[in-house]
Amino acid sequence: MTLDAADLARLDRAHIIHPYLPGTATERVVMTDGAGCRLTDTEGRGYLDATGGLWLAQVGHGRTDLADVAHEQMKKLEYFTSFWDFSNDRAIELAARLAELAPDPLNHVYYTSGGSEGVEAAIKMARYYHHRRGESSRTWILARSKAYHGVGYGGSSAAGFPLYQEGFAPMVPHVSHLTPPWPYRTELYDGQATTPEEVTDFLIRELEERIAEIGPEHIAAMVGEPIMGVGGMLVPPADYWPRVREVLDRHGILLIFDEVVTAYGRVGEWFAAQYFDTTPDIIVTAKGITSGYVPLGALLVGDHVAEALLREHGFPMGYTYNGHPVATAVALANLDIIEKEGLLARATTIGSFLHAELQSQLGDLEVVGEVRSVGMMLAVELVADRATREPLPLDPERMPHDVIRRETGVIVRDSAHSLVLSPPLIMTEAEAKEAASALRGVLERTEPNGRIRQA
Amino acid sequence: MTLDAADLARLDRAHIIHPYLPGTATERVVMTDGAGCRLTDTEGRGYLDATGGLWLAQVGHGRTDLADVAHEQMKKLEYFTSFWDFSNDRAIELAARLAELAPDPLNHVYYTSGGSEGVEAAIKMARYYHHRRGESSRTWILARSKAYHGVGYGGSSAAGFPLYQEGFAPMVPHVSHLTPPWPYRTELYDGQATTPEEVTDFLIRELEERIAEIGPEHIAAMVGEPIMGVGGMLVPPADYWPRVREVLDRHGILLIFDEVVTAYGRVGEWFAAQYFDTTPDIIVTAKGITSGYVPLGALLVGDHVAEALLREHGFPMGYTYNGHPVATAVALANLDIIEKEGLLARATTIGSFLHAELQSQLGDLEVVGEVRSVGMMLAVELVADRATREPLPLDPERMPHDVIRRETGVIVRDSAHSLVLSPPLIMTEAEAKEAASALRGVLERTEPNGRIRQA
Repeated sequence: MTLDAADLARLDRAHIIHPYLPGTATERVVMTDGAGCRLTDTEGRGYLDATGGLWLAQVGHGRTDLADVAHEQMKKLEYFTSFWDFSNDRAIELAARLAELAPDPLNHVYYTSGGSEGVEAAIKMARYYHHRRGESSRTWILARSKAYHGVGYGGSSAAGFPLYQEGFAPMVPHVSHLTPPWPYRTELYDGQATTPEEVTDFLIRELEERIAEIGPEHIAAMVGEPIMGVGGMLVPPADYWPRVREVLDRHGILLIFDEVVTAYGRVGEWFAAQYFDTTPDIIVTAKGITSGYVPLGALLVGDHVAEALLREHGFPMGYTYNGHPVATAVALANLDIIEKEGLLARATTIGSFLHAELQSQLGDLEVVGEVRSVGMMLAVELVADRATREPLPLDPERMPHDVIRRETGVIVRDSAHSLVLSPPLIMTEAEAKEAASALRGVLERTEPNGRIRQA
Repeated sequence: MTLDAADLARLDRAHIIHPYLPGTATERVVMTDGAGCRLTDTEGRGYLDATGGLWLAQVGHGRTDLADVAHEQMKKLEYFTSFWDFSNDRAIELAARLAELAPDPLNHVYYTSGGSEGVEAAIKMARYYHHRRGESSRTWILARSKAYHGVGYGGSSAAGFPLYQEGFAPMVPHVSHLTPPWPYRTELYDGQATTPEEVTDFLIRELEERIAEIGPEHIAAMVGEPIMGVGGMLVPPADYWPRVREVLDRHGILLIFDEVVTAYGRVGEWFAAQYFDTTPDIIVTAKGITSGYVPLGALLVGDHVAEALLREHGFPMGYTYNGHPVATAVALANLDIIEKEGLLARATTIGSFLHAELQSQLGDLEVVGEVRSVGMMLAVELVADRATREPLPLDPERMPHDVIRRETGVIVRDSAHSLVLSPPLIMTEAEAKEAASALRGVLERTEPNGRIRQA
């Protein structure tokens, strides 16, 4: 059966429930090919992938070297379980490699197939850690508004958007949300903070007060994205994480970094933990670990946490594909590429280049409030008024990122009134210019009321 | 770096947190190769895989045909997101294929990367379905003791073993557990049931009472494995699911089948829904969909449920690897193999053969209470006394399945006092005999106190 573009679009509408897509939407963009930062759809149209798939295509699309590794491993051993005392050579090699890359004392690896699974495991680990140490009352999880932690019940209970809870409740109890570090939105801080240092002061004060309210003896962990992705690439002040760490340490509360987006080069280091010079107790990773070629996730776990988890009958949860031989083989080869092609350094240089391009091409536009970035995580925050910083009203039928894609083929993402970019780390300067120009072409026709004039 | 067997075992102990493995356990079985039903470890030892990995290796290990498909697809398009209006050709083809295979009206597919993710999505879908239809008070989930539904917070809240909740609580609220259908364990039914029909009568009565207690207007769904796997291959009476369905229908309660283990041929049909002639509203699948070659899961969703989910802004949750092109390409090829090699029929014939072998080789042993099976899901329930059916005491240091593996290389699984087998559907009669002989060799030396005599 050969299906043409119209057949595929029709079958898609008839049979697939896409995340976040209303039944009334009839448009489909059906990709068939990818190479580097480029994609092609069923109609032969080309795209520039400035989102890196879903923030994960570190080494770019359609790489034969990774396909060859998957092919060889799949013929040799495609899968066996890693539950109990079973293991496989690739999973072990990757675990040893990750333990080398991760900050000390994060020397232990727990495998998943993705970020959502990872957050479920991390929350369970935090509670279990205290339970095994005789502090079963430590059950509360501190999270933040604007947080995104995947869509398992644990992770979506920690999410800081009502969208992830409305209609799904009751959620996992004992989650408390703090204010996010978002210096551009000074209104979040009750007029008490305008400088980054004041923002941190405000947030640390709130954290201390919240801990006192709940009681430290009831709190298991704080979970946070080092840089909040879905929230719109919210970069905290430099002293935020070190000071949070200090407070949590003082109260025996674990720190979980959700680095599903930030790990494996995106911020110019292997982990954002290194960028912020803060060592959490658990790091949740996925996405960039294989650049998306095969689903995989890994939790990096501190010695002290592992010691507690491994007591008695061990840690009683496991995902089927735990330590998947093909996924781990591809991850090893992917990390090799990141290393050999110098992509950590490249994330910083091409990220700075892209930031400068966005700044120079968009900086004069009335609807652009701020361009911000760390490495290859970039955001252009859209406003109705640069003085008041009032968010740009958006028309769901004609959102800027949709118009940009339709007109130029450049794919960027909408995240809470920001356009966010997380391209492959191999992006060229020409592609960076192309992306910035595409944004300018649409944003210069975007009015403060959110209407986008025809080109 | 070349690592020998000792290096790998050492690195494994140093760096991997295996599910369910205590830190004190030093033994490791590190697989490196697989072909058909056979596996080989780092020391060159051969194994017969009678568990099918983790109940999933339908078409057997190390198949070049599936590796070739993965290779081609990975070079062409390894990944792009299927969120919003994005899609890809392989994901669409697979969705159309699944809609054909599934019972009507399950015509809609929602993708995940595995069973745990699938159960989270199914529970959320059930609550959301009612929410969108204006019955937001329908939040309760009916589950069963001995149930296993993965290890996300939603699924482990529905699990029917304390192991999945102790130390992880508080769990997702509004879950109520019913008695499982396990005709061999007549003690579960308060002396009110000895025949299968009486077991169903008891369970339906309990279901009706529980619905009345909670109030049908507060209940979203019942979730159940058609045959309970981790519980020990618990096969319900033939009239159980049709009668449950009838009760739920009467009260507007959705039925979710967790077919992560049972789908794609394991019971001799595409889905256990067909085996039990019962159509649920949502079927959760994973495992056998790719035979484990690439992590993938798919929910099959009824028209009426999809209609509600697609209202307004659509269904607000998605997993990164949703509709992964390589995973869906491999799934298509895997379903082709199941079809072309006649593996649905083969599950029944080789399953019956293996059942007969187990019965004839083990039927006379004092510690064997019952051999039961559907297709290629088999269990040998171990007892201290065949008359009283008292479960066999087990020594964690020297469990029958471990001794069987160490002595014979045959891999079976321990599940709640049963040895369970779920081999690849391609198993030969010679391999079936070998598996049964391996069990006999150890069980004939197993005493009613659980001690296993040296060979």
